[in-house]
Amino acid sequence: MNKQQLIAQIQEKRSFLCVGLDTDITKLPAHLQQHPDAAYEFNKAIIDATKDHCVSYKINTAFYESMGLKGWEIMERTLAYIPKTHLSIADAKRGDIGNTAAQYAKTFFEVLPFDAVTVAPYMGEDSVRPFLEYDNKWAIVLGLTSNKGSNDFQRLMVQHAADDTALLPHIVAPNRPRALYEEVLTKVAAWGSTDNLMFVIGATQASQLQDIRSIIPDHFLLVPGVGAQGGSLEEVAKYGKNKDCGLLVNASRAVIYAATDETFAEAAARAAKDYQVEMSSYL
Amino acid sequence: MNKQQLIAQIQEKRSFLCVGLDTDITKLPAHLQQHPDAAYEFNKAIIDATKDHCVSYKINTAFYESMGLKGWEIMERTLAYIPKTHLSIADAKRGDIGNTAAQYAKTFFEVLPFDAVTVAPYMGEDSVRPFLEYDNKWAIVLGLTSNKGSNDFQRLMVQHAADDTALLPHIVAPNRPRALYEEVLTKVAAWGSTDNLMFVIGATQASQLQDIRSIIPDHFLLVPGVGAQGGSLEEVAKYGKNKDCGLLVNASRAVIYAATDETFAEAAARAAKDYQVEMSSYL
Repeated sequence: MNKQQLIAQIQEKRSFLCVGLDTDITKLPAHLQQHPDAAYEFNKAIIDATKDHCVSYKINTAFYESMGLKGWEIMERTLAYIPKTHLSIADAKRGDIGNTAAQYAKTFFEVLPFDAVTVAPYMGEDSVRPFLEYDNKWAIVLGLTSNKGSNDFQRLMVQHAADDTALLPHIVAPNRPRALYEEVLTKVAAWGSTDNLMFVIGATQASQLQDIRSIIPDHFLLVPGVGAQGGSLEEVAKYGKNKDCGLLVNASRAVIYAATDETFAEAAARAAKDYQVEMSSYL
Repeated sequence: MNKQQLIAQIQEKRSFLCVGLDTDITKLPAHLQQHPDAAYEFNKAIIDATKDHCVSYKINTAFYESMGLKGWEIMERTLAYIPKTHLSIADAKRGDIGNTAAQYAKTFFEVLPFDAVTVAPYMGEDSVRPFLEYDNKWAIVLGLTSNKGSNDFQRLMVQHAADDTALLPHIVAPNRPRALYEEVLTKVAAWGSTDNLMFVIGATQASQLQDIRSIIPDHFLLVPGVGAQGGSLEEVAKYGKNKDCGLLVNASRAVIYAATDETFAEAAARAAKDYQVEMSSYL
């Protein structure tokens, strides 16, 4: 999926919601637990219930890998069931040296034909590049995450090149002290374009979105942490939106576990619709 | 596997070699390419040929994931074939928020019963902790990697707390400027112990090993980058060895692709034996 198609979806649906399929087999509604294909049936029902209110689905690969072979197979079928109109994201946070990163890109863009995959930046340029070599596919690189651990390294102040205005001419204050996550945004942005690169920016950090937008004004941001993790959608929209919208706000638990009985799909539809209605007011 | 068992293996075999099973289906010997179970047969032959010369096997998950479902199944069988005397490592470089990290720990310690898994530090403490909650299992956290991209972020100088001697009392010069990877080693070391935590330190950076040992004198280091990537085993041993040996040096391509014809297994045995003989002289 390319950027124009994504923007068109957002405008048509008046939504920038991404529904996270963090499907935990132990949290499924009781009546589904005995189903031989419970996780897939659950995902299918969630997708049917929410697809009119969202523009993207994010599959958290950890929840499928932890089911073993069967989980990998459920991930394949779930991906196949996601409508082609919706941006499909493998939330896999892969990151390794060049030749290995190329294998991961093959995994999540060819073997499993996702539109996008999340990537960890710690290993640098050759670990990200292979994900940028596919047409109409996206690397979504971790910038500032929504968890407590983001304080441990991402917010450390770093020394950086004295003048990097050449790298990013639009940057507001190139020589001010910069946190590691800002250095990540600055450097990684130079490796790709707004057509093949997005960033993960946790919603619990909405106040930082203004500074972040001074570094990457035009990129799409994947924003987790709204809902169960406590981030404010209003603040995210206020500080993070750009001319293309430029936001995909993810909600996982708040949608897929909105109810945990037979009404789970209707409850998920209502939760997704509530997000869509609120998002509509910010567009 | 616990630390005493690992040390005993190293002493008995006079080797600290880890063989990396980066099994690329396109690089297998021609006579195996048509075999219906080529990758597994290759791994089995490599393990049989090298097990007397090494103490560990490292499965690079990317190469298996890129084969899809079948690859995941080959990874399961290969892991089952690795002798229990050898430390089995999932080189998966996972890293995500706490509840997701717990799913990854379950994947690589329970569903696939590896002894150890590599973990990326960018997301901080709650992304690492779940891997430290298993008895006789290991998290191997990325410190300084062997690729060119390690210059992009890992070597950035960071500002850190003025006095962290309380954190690591043995540290030589707590207040000197510190690179990000040194900050990672310092902080992560405080989250676990030398019984459940190792670090990845790329061999192409052997000259830094002295400084690294001033931060983490007692931890085992997993050292990739010897062989195909050009690191020197002699330098790694000289600067990196501690009282327990404290090293696992990984060779992947230099062993498993030592020959690419019918003699591949004998060639792998010779390459592994050559490493073992050289390692013996450094112990």
